[in-house]
Amino acid sequence: MDNTPAQQHGPGRPAGSGTRLDSYVDRYAARTAGMTASEIRALFAVASRPEVVSLAGGMPNISGLPLDVVGSAIGDLIATSGPVALQYGSGQGDPALREQICEVMRLEGIEAHPDDVVVTVGSQQAVDLVTRIFCDPGDVVLCEAPSYVGALGVFKSFQCDVVHVEMDADGLVPEALEQAITSVRASGRTIKFLYTIPNFHNPAGVTLTPERRPRILEICRRHDILVLEDNPYGLLGFEAEPQRALRADEAEGVIYLGSFSKTFSPGMRVGWALAPHAVREKLVLAQESATLCPPSFSQMAVSAYLSTHDWQGQIKQMREMYRERRDAMMEALRDFMPATCAWNEPEGGFFVWVTLPPGVDAKAMLPRAVTARVAYVPGTAFFADGFGSGSMRLSFCYPTPERIREGVRRLAGVLEEEMELRQTFGAVPPSAAVEARSGYDAPSSDLS
Amino acid sequence: MDNTPAQQHGPGRPAGSGTRLDSYVDRYAARTAGMTASEIRALFAVASRPEVVSLAGGMPNISGLPLDVVGSAIGDLIATSGPVALQYGSGQGDPALREQICEVMRLEGIEAHPDDVVVTVGSQQAVDLVTRIFCDPGDVVLCEAPSYVGALGVFKSFQCDVVHVEMDADGLVPEALEQAITSVRASGRTIKFLYTIPNFHNPAGVTLTPERRPRILEICRRHDILVLEDNPYGLLGFEAEPQRALRADEAEGVIYLGSFSKTFSPGMRVGWALAPHAVREKLVLAQESATLCPPSFSQMAVSAYLSTHDWQGQIKQMREMYRERRDAMMEALRDFMPATCAWNEPEGGFFVWVTLPPGVDAKAMLPRAVTARVAYVPGTAFFADGFGSGSMRLSFCYPTPERIREGVRRLAGVLEEEMELRQTFGAVPPSAAVEARSGYDAPSSDLS
Repeated sequence: MDNTPAQQHGPGRPAGSGTRLDSYVDRYAARTAGMTASEIRALFAVASRPEVVSLAGGMPNISGLPLDVVGSAIGDLIATSGPVALQYGSGQGDPALREQICEVMRLEGIEAHPDDVVVTVGSQQAVDLVTRIFCDPGDVVLCEAPSYVGALGVFKSFQCDVVHVEMDADGLVPEALEQAITSVRASGRTIKFLYTIPNFHNPAGVTLTPERRPRILEICRRHDILVLEDNPYGLLGFEAEPQRALRADEAEGVIYLGSFSKTFSPGMRVGWALAPHAVREKLVLAQESATLCPPSFSQMAVSAYLSTHDWQGQIKQMREMYRERRDAMMEALRDFMPATCAWNEPEGGFFVWVTLPPGVDAKAMLPRAVTARVAYVPGTAFFADGFGSGSMRLSFCYPTPERIREGVRRLAGVLEEEMELRQTFGAVPPSAAVEARSGYDAPSSDLS
Repeated sequence: MDNTPAQQHGPGRPAGSGTRLDSYVDRYAARTAGMTASEIRALFAVASRPEVVSLAGGMPNISGLPLDVVGSAIGDLIATSGPVALQYGSGQGDPALREQICEVMRLEGIEAHPDDVVVTVGSQQAVDLVTRIFCDPGDVVLCEAPSYVGALGVFKSFQCDVVHVEMDADGLVPEALEQAITSVRASGRTIKFLYTIPNFHNPAGVTLTPERRPRILEICRRHDILVLEDNPYGLLGFEAEPQRALRADEAEGVIYLGSFSKTFSPGMRVGWALAPHAVREKLVLAQESATLCPPSFSQMAVSAYLSTHDWQGQIKQMREMYRERRDAMMEALRDFMPATCAWNEPEGGFFVWVTLPPGVDAKAMLPRAVTARVAYVPGTAFFADGFGSGSMRLSFCYPTPERIREGVRRLAGVLEEEMELRQTFGAVPPSAAVEARSGYDAPSSDLS
């Protein structure tokens, strides 16, 4: 296979006259074949211009962080522990940080031992490592409908089959989960785990109710399904105390993922997995294979921040700031959006899920929206199966309340035009640049 | 498969009375089956005690780093660019750092564009991402004999078949490479790439001669074999200017890997891959799937260090420090080791490869060595096929010259005893704790 016919246009001899742009195209692994850049990326490059209001990105607003505190904590760290912070560390992660991670998780009712925590390069890497150790090609991962684009990207890259399970305003629907399990198994396929984001869901903005949590756990226990609980936003609720984690009531059947990206700094890339002991051992081996060890320097910087700063007070400030932005978005949606649109009111996190009037295609409309200087992520990005064209994710995390209002006003204008065109011509052809396609769009840090 | 019989001892119901330690054992991916902790790890835990001279680890000696310079560069970074350094960054890596990486590579004759550089979480992650995008189960990777334990771990974790190619004092043997290619292809298998460490090889300590470099490139070109050139030690030569990289003379057929772990700080976990354009695109997509983006914070810290400090002068100091340690090890080997041992004199890097007297098994002897307060890595760690029991890797990077001398003295004592036992009893049974096994030992950061 590698000596015919790739040999004729191999690395030493690039293919002639533009017929083959990638001389390696025949050499990649099967898992790489589907790894293509999303065509909406080019639009996001445009969307990053200052005149565009981006309601697309998932970047936290870290402008409130006390840079003087962070700077002096890190300065002290280098002065007192430089030779450790600059050296290789444990593949499992810094022991002091793992203790602190257990403190953080205690806020959600989790009693855990630092030995069962593995530090990862953001919780994205935790999704990657868990998938790596569990999933063979063709294995099924159950995900909410819709689900986090970055996790879908990992599942695809390990050639998993994603089966979406219905969610509603109360989160994942227990009956739908039960039915999905039964029907996947009836088809002879193997379910490796349920991937779920119980709190302030990305992208759906909903939270699994306290009533449903034990039911979801009971179903998974009964059907012997491992739960991968991804919880980056759990401490960013606007109304009440943090919800009790699924992991708090089920230690052996849940792998819990957490992150400092939304409550402190994404640039540190410090997340973690809390896993049953035997799984944790595999995760450490996988981490060592992937990176030898996560960065000592940023782990110790996070640890220094946590131990020198009132991080819970800081999170409280963040919650207030995000609540104000959520309120601005809710008000703008009510003020400007066509009556045939629907959306939810998230109680925390970064995102609102908007359902568009029947027949409007969010992906086809995106170039027109960007031209009107507003950006969003089309719903199709959050489904593995081409669904979601009638929805979009709006983020309220990054722009100011004023910009959010202006962005929603522009978006509503684009929608009105779209609906008028539909009334006049029956249907709007998709833009040539973003033709309808099945599948979802590859993740990018802009979409995180 | 997931409903029988795993269902009976699944996550919710741990197996009873110790019959099954890992209730997930039937659930892992095929790639995970072989992922087991090395039995020599327990010994290395002992070997990390201060009374043991460890000639095992690959940790650089960073005690010479100017902590005041590093601390103030990072302090300034937070003060002036905190909101960027603490935020998500590009999946490909910080553009300013990628420019600087091109400057670093120029020292080895490489002319490259920052667009073709992907920043990785140490060059370990670069090996992981390259393997991820190229290798299906059963694909062959050609490696030197011996080869870097961390790379072997990655190849194993992606279910590659490693085929070792002979190396001698001049590095990889061209005729052996040609023969390996022919014989692997004759067996119908697909070679995905040649993984090679041309400079100051880990673990062999040898360097590919200037005469052989064009021959290796010619063979790979002719047989259409991609080269993965791993070069963490290239700037740490003791005698002369850096060697010209393979990549300097072949842009399309070589992926070059570099790292700041040995020339600045491993705790930053900043490495990189320089790849042909189409491959670079796949690597970025793989990086986004694995981590969203490498840590902005440590990338910008490395960048600040490079732009505020005389990093080349710092590397010159490191070379002198390592040369002194290499000299101490050479002298001690000459003074203490049995005449039937052989070793090479490395011209740079961290490692010496020692061939033991016939019949002595380095792995079986390790517990006795640790008891005598000296540690090394048995040669078997560096082979995928069980070879190497008659060799060991000694590191001179981390202990002081005095400790190196003492360590070699202790090691020679253990060897003498071993040989006496052999003379008396014919053969020494392997210790129960470290029975001979085929395959290599999983990597750990201690072995890097």
